[in-house]
Amino acid sequence: MAAGYALACQTVVEGDAVVRLPEPQTIERRLVTDKSARAVDLPFAYDPGRDQTVRAFFVTLDAPTLDDATDDLSRLERALAPSGVRELDVPLPLLRELGQRLREAGWRVTALVETDDWRRPDGPPRLIDVLPGDQRQSVWGAAIDIGTTTVSAYLVNLVTGRAVDGAAEYNGQIARGEDVISRILYAGKNGGLGELGQLARRTISDVLARLAQRNHVALHQIVKATVTGNSTMIHLFLGLPPASIRLSPYVTVVNNPRPVLASEIGLDIHPLASVDCLPGIASYVGADITAGVLSSSLSEAEGLTLFIDVGTNGEIALSTGDRTVATSSPAGPAFEGAQIRCGMRATDGAIETVVMDDDVRIQVIGGDLPAKGLCGSGLIDAAAQLRIAGLLDASGRLASADEAGGHPLAGRLIEVDGIRALRLTDDVVLTQHDIRELQSAKAAVATGIAALMEGTGVRTEELEEVLLAGSFGTFINPESARVIGLVPPVPVQRIAAAGNAAGEGAKMALLSFRERQVAFELPDRVEYVELSARPGFNEEFVAATAFPELETVS
Amino acid sequence: MAAGYALACQTVVEGDAVVRLPEPQTIERRLVTDKSARAVDLPFAYDPGRDQTVRAFFVTLDAPTLDDATDDLSRLERALAPSGVRELDVPLPLLRELGQRLREAGWRVTALVETDDWRRPDGPPRLIDVLPGDQRQSVWGAAIDIGTTTVSAYLVNLVTGRAVDGAAEYNGQIARGEDVISRILYAGKNGGLGELGQLARRTISDVLARLAQRNHVALHQIVKATVTGNSTMIHLFLGLPPASIRLSPYVTVVNNPRPVLASEIGLDIHPLASVDCLPGIASYVGADITAGVLSSSLSEAEGLTLFIDVGTNGEIALSTGDRTVATSSPAGPAFEGAQIRCGMRATDGAIETVVMDDDVRIQVIGGDLPAKGLCGSGLIDAAAQLRIAGLLDASGRLASADEAGGHPLAGRLIEVDGIRALRLTDDVVLTQHDIRELQSAKAAVATGIAALMEGTGVRTEELEEVLLAGSFGTFINPESARVIGLVPPVPVQRIAAAGNAAGEGAKMALLSFRERQVAFELPDRVEYVELSARPGFNEEFVAATAFPELETVS
Repeated sequence: MAAGYALACQTVVEGDAVVRLPEPQTIERRLVTDKSARAVDLPFAYDPGRDQTVRAFFVTLDAPTLDDATDDLSRLERALAPSGVRELDVPLPLLRELGQRLREAGWRVTALVETDDWRRPDGPPRLIDVLPGDQRQSVWGAAIDIGTTTVSAYLVNLVTGRAVDGAAEYNGQIARGEDVISRILYAGKNGGLGELGQLARRTISDVLARLAQRNHVALHQIVKATVTGNSTMIHLFLGLPPASIRLSPYVTVVNNPRPVLASEIGLDIHPLASVDCLPGIASYVGADITAGVLSSSLSEAEGLTLFIDVGTNGEIALSTGDRTVATSSPAGPAFEGAQIRCGMRATDGAIETVVMDDDVRIQVIGGDLPAKGLCGSGLIDAAAQLRIAGLLDASGRLASADEAGGHPLAGRLIEVDGIRALRLTDDVVLTQHDIRELQSAKAAVATGIAALMEGTGVRTEELEEVLLAGSFGTFINPESARVIGLVPPVPVQRIAAAGNAAGEGAKMALLSFRERQVAFELPDRVEYVELSARPGFNEEFVAATAFPELETVS
Repeated sequence: MAAGYALACQTVVEGDAVVRLPEPQTIERRLVTDKSARAVDLPFAYDPGRDQTVRAFFVTLDAPTLDDATDDLSRLERALAPSGVRELDVPLPLLRELGQRLREAGWRVTALVETDDWRRPDGPPRLIDVLPGDQRQSVWGAAIDIGTTTVSAYLVNLVTGRAVDGAAEYNGQIARGEDVISRILYAGKNGGLGELGQLARRTISDVLARLAQRNHVALHQIVKATVTGNSTMIHLFLGLPPASIRLSPYVTVVNNPRPVLASEIGLDIHPLASVDCLPGIASYVGADITAGVLSSSLSEAEGLTLFIDVGTNGEIALSTGDRTVATSSPAGPAFEGAQIRCGMRATDGAIETVVMDDDVRIQVIGGDLPAKGLCGSGLIDAAAQLRIAGLLDASGRLASADEAGGHPLAGRLIEVDGIRALRLTDDVVLTQHDIRELQSAKAAVATGIAALMEGTGVRTEELEEVLLAGSFGTFINPESARVIGLVPPVPVQRIAAAGNAAGEGAKMALLSFRERQVAFELPDRVEYVELSARPGFNEEFVAATAFPELETVS
């Protein structure tokens, strides 16, 4: 109170009040950390002539004469014909300016053309822009990953194939609901759908504007965008009502939307840029998983690979070489620090790693900052370390100070509001209730993994690689994940972070026609397993809330 | 003045004044007259399954279940697959409503689909609308002819192929310029282009609204439109700047525009209706001629056929069976009554036919109305009759009363403002100057015809049919046209009115995929001859101002 603020959760509002929310912390720092274990390189040498759908051609047109009074568009087409571009499809706003552009440029222009559409290979190429002189080097694209929490984007040079920069920002929708379910509910309110769409697009535009500015690129030079995200995020981005995603039988309006123009959805890049949303597999196995599977080459993996993207939903895919199966499990927001007493997102002040021996040692995001709370990776570490320390039994029951007896950490076992807890710092505790939340979350993921393994007859010892996707997957301690049973008990060296797999997949699809084709076909190749339709799901889930016996995971 | 009005051309405005223009006469009467010599029937039996690109399918979808959680769009596609419709392209505004439409209709819907695009036959069909229940009968189209003076349209049932009604209205652009040149100049002014486009679209919307209302059709049930008109009209309609059409070397922005959506140009029919402008051949041989050639089956004619569309420009096509050549000649506005002392458009009060023997007998549009002026067909009649009466020599010189001596019409030969003239009625005269204007106009057309005949080596006696298109062609007296040398001196029974050839062609292209294909290919098959690039054009033109000797045309 002395510092000028009170805790909202401890305050009763007795009259009109103005509530000010402090600016959210920038999260970009977290994304450029070198902790990313697996930087995904493009698995091909980039050749725009072969791979890229958006091409720039510099052409000199013959000026019209009485003997050659071909119309402006045919004249441009004639000049482009030697490059293999024929019968251009020219959007009306551009056609309206074509004559003036050609004349003002003295008939020497760079034509930006989307030469191929992987869904209508025989269709006419589309003219995106006509620029004066030779501007073949200024062709940019954006790969965008719309996360429920974080929107990240790469700025990619479509001539060289290089992603020159990346940036991220909290999804502006967060204030309208933390998870997809609350967003879907909000979208159902009057004007909610439009508002959420606008918030997502504004966040993207902010991120892209920052990327453009610091790389000296104009926003209208971004002439192609590839977008990934879970099905709800894609729906909100496109202005599609997501209501049916929430309710059984959980269907989307469309899993595989066709590309739209930036101007159709009000995205602040070149108005005639195509904005291409990757396809999803099901309501809760969205385009983010398609992109992740694409960038992990999972569907083409020869060995047995398990891919896990942990967030509010745990999205899981398993490739056996022959088959790829996928499911989604409702982990809830515990991994993102929600519904945890001292939980917080992975930003400055969050405890991200916990080690216990004769005392508790923590690492806080932001280095020397005082610990303000516990984020997902810290939560998993704390539980795993408590298990190893013998202070947490397999059922998830936290020892009391009395029970801990002479244990060096016994003094940290306290009660908070009548609930057992571990004191991590003076300000941050981990309660019994928090551990129960964690158990539910990890049980959901574990049940999903078990269902996929059972359905394909795969045994744990056969798993050759367990990929943990997303920033959460990057920062999680694989050993801790194994100790609490979030991942199967494979040797720890088989567990790897897949990095920003969704973003990488979007980048690949942005750059390569062929990779885009693979993404397009993935939904037909990946078998979706609906957990809630599975008999015995509830029993399996309850059983999976237990922690594994230590001997099985060490 | 006593009646409350003064002639604007006789009045000097000395201060601020409010100018009121009386409502233009309705011209619809003229278009439904039975004087149309050649009512064009569709040259094929209509089968929408074979001919029509816009189809309505009534389908019942399976409601989603946990075992069949396909997305809404794929579900619709699955239901349409047995009809041969696959991989729908759904515009975003419709996709946003798809889920709700399907559910509110209890999964029983009529899908309006544009099944084929003749320019991308392998491309995905496009969804236009999803309507509740069985609405297969409510599929309408519009065939629109945007004339410089008159906009006409047909309302066509796309299920039966019947044009149930037609209507016309003065082009709302008239107040911004009478002819294409003045419209092009106006379009170059600030905001002029947008204004002219809006005026054209408003006129079309008015005509369609009238058609829809009196046939109990809702405007949004019009789901396809085919548009024809000269190149300038098409440019203004689409919002394309027509400036380069006016200036040598006379090029358009595009001769063959791709279809646009009604919502893209603000046409007040179904917003997702495709609006398909027929292709033009050159700046001054526009889509109206393509449509005319199509409906006259000119390009497929076995015999030698000459097609003439007389207006401000004389547009001429000649088919030899093997080849079709076309040109345009700047006739000027005389045929439309402009720059003629008592000239007027063909509306109530216009003298439309003139016969001379011992007196002058006239026929006035509107029957018993007093004659107010002279329209194009009356002008041609008057000149031809003067030639036959021996009062007009081959050079175009009108006899004076003295020279006419004892001729029964000598008393009608007067002087007006020092210029020789013929008194047709007390109020209407035909002056020597008017005859000079007529000579220029007919010389332009005749020079064009001669150029085409010379280029193809066709002699007059070989011409099997001379088709006069448009309403002017319908009302013109073929004998008079021959006497003044507007058409070659073929036997009069070989001269026929082609009716509203442009509108008929638009109707054919609206109804038939195959006819649309023919229209698409016409510009490549028709050879354009640019008169102004022709050596000796001026000499030929001057020579053609003379009237033919009577013995050669009788």
